[in-house]
Amino acid sequence: MKNERPLILVSNDDGYLAKGINVLMRALVELGDVIVVAPHTGRSGKGCAITSEIPVKLWQISEEPGLKVYACTGTPSDCIKLACHTVVERRPSLIIGGINHGDNSAVNAHYSGTMGVVIEGCMKGIPSIAFSLCSHDEDADFSPTLPYIRSIVRNVLDKGLPYGSCLNVNFPDSPQYAGIKVCRQANGQWINEWEGHTHPRGGNWYWLTGSFECCDTSADADRVALDNNYATITPTRIDFTDYKLLDELKEWDIHPEQ
Amino acid sequence: MKNERPLILVSNDDGYLAKGINVLMRALVELGDVIVVAPHTGRSGKGCAITSEIPVKLWQISEEPGLKVYACTGTPSDCIKLACHTVVERRPSLIIGGINHGDNSAVNAHYSGTMGVVIEGCMKGIPSIAFSLCSHDEDADFSPTLPYIRSIVRNVLDKGLPYGSCLNVNFPDSPQYAGIKVCRQANGQWINEWEGHTHPRGGNWYWLTGSFECCDTSADADRVALDNNYATITPTRIDFTDYKLLDELKEWDIHPEQ
Repeated sequence: MKNERPLILVSNDDGYLAKGINVLMRALVELGDVIVVAPHTGRSGKGCAITSEIPVKLWQISEEPGLKVYACTGTPSDCIKLACHTVVERRPSLIIGGINHGDNSAVNAHYSGTMGVVIEGCMKGIPSIAFSLCSHDEDADFSPTLPYIRSIVRNVLDKGLPYGSCLNVNFPDSPQYAGIKVCRQANGQWINEWEGHTHPRGGNWYWLTGSFECCDTSADADRVALDNNYATITPTRIDFTDYKLLDELKEWDIHPEQ
Repeated sequence: MKNERPLILVSNDDGYLAKGINVLMRALVELGDVIVVAPHTGRSGKGCAITSEIPVKLWQISEEPGLKVYACTGTPSDCIKLACHTVVERRPSLIIGGINHGDNSAVNAHYSGTMGVVIEGCMKGIPSIAFSLCSHDEDADFSPTLPYIRSIVRNVLDKGLPYGSCLNVNFPDSPQYAGIKVCRQANGQWINEWEGHTHPRGGNWYWLTGSFECCDTSADADRVALDNNYATITPTRIDFTDYKLLDELKEWDIHPEQ
């Protein structure tokens, strides 16, 4: 239908009650019809996990002009799968994950439920964007992100994204940014990842903790640019084939060994 | 220490009792010292999920010369993180996920806990390989995979893998293969993903189901090669930056919009 407002499907991994997704849905209503299908509670660090062994429940939370909100007991990826199957009445123009409470830059994108949302959207051939703020504060100030979010959303609605590619956008925890920078995914790794405890009745239990060490120093690595107070856009593809290694492997002598 | 046997760390997403990981650990004991740290129960479809909100428990199952087995209540990624932090006494030469009961080719690698194992290994800079058999049968015949697994493991122990790259190996459900092929990740998507049910006391619940439609036809796409009875090796990188799109995005006009 001509002049129809774009349909924007939104999810996250902090749950539908989180401040980040509520700030985001209010801002997006200016740009299109918004449907939110988000986890009923926090599902951080769930990556692209899906729920295959138990059923998931879906129910509506609220409805007002241009905005419907649903909760789901599944993962972020489940939310997008279920929204596309059951909730949306037309194909979304855009799928958005966020605004996440916490950084999703560098290799940590692999653990991110916010990225789970957009990788799922990307698999469905729908332009998809993840927004994250580098603050875990549940009352974080998301207002500095909104002028950039509007511009990025308008650009993607206008130009689209190539099939198989999505955007991972991160914002520094700062009232004003040095600017916005197109980046690559930084390398790094977690150290001191566990804190051990003994259960009062015996048994070794471990809490996941630790700190992330970025081993990149170049200015175009997303984690480095965030440290330099830039908002970052890391274009991300769902095809994670290593084409360089592919050619090398063809030279290997692999044969059945009894 | 010279002439030390390589240490091979093994995990999976089907749990330490699954036939696939038990067949694998027995085969690997011929090639090195093996430590298994695997989920205590099935954790399929968990991707790179980590457990951040509750502690995980770790306990030893068995010990014999060259082989120690541990169970963990965490995800496949947690198992590798915890094994490296707490269990291994020296740096593993190799991390292996599998042998998975079920296909992990194409974009489904994103959902795979088996790939969660090797992406975690890869982040830690350790050469990592995922092995999967295209059969969900809990008593599947893994014996045709072993001659190829031996050869691939020997090649990786000998040559290593570049930092940030790992291997995703899939085997057809067949007693004999047409050969082994180095592939790229096939494209495709899931359709008819949910089956809805109403709870006897009300409420809408959905089971994840559906079928995967491969939209690739070229012979070097992993899903296509598997259909042609080839074992497949898909080299995979943890940097999923889209470098082509990165250059295009630099031309976009993104500026703060009030």
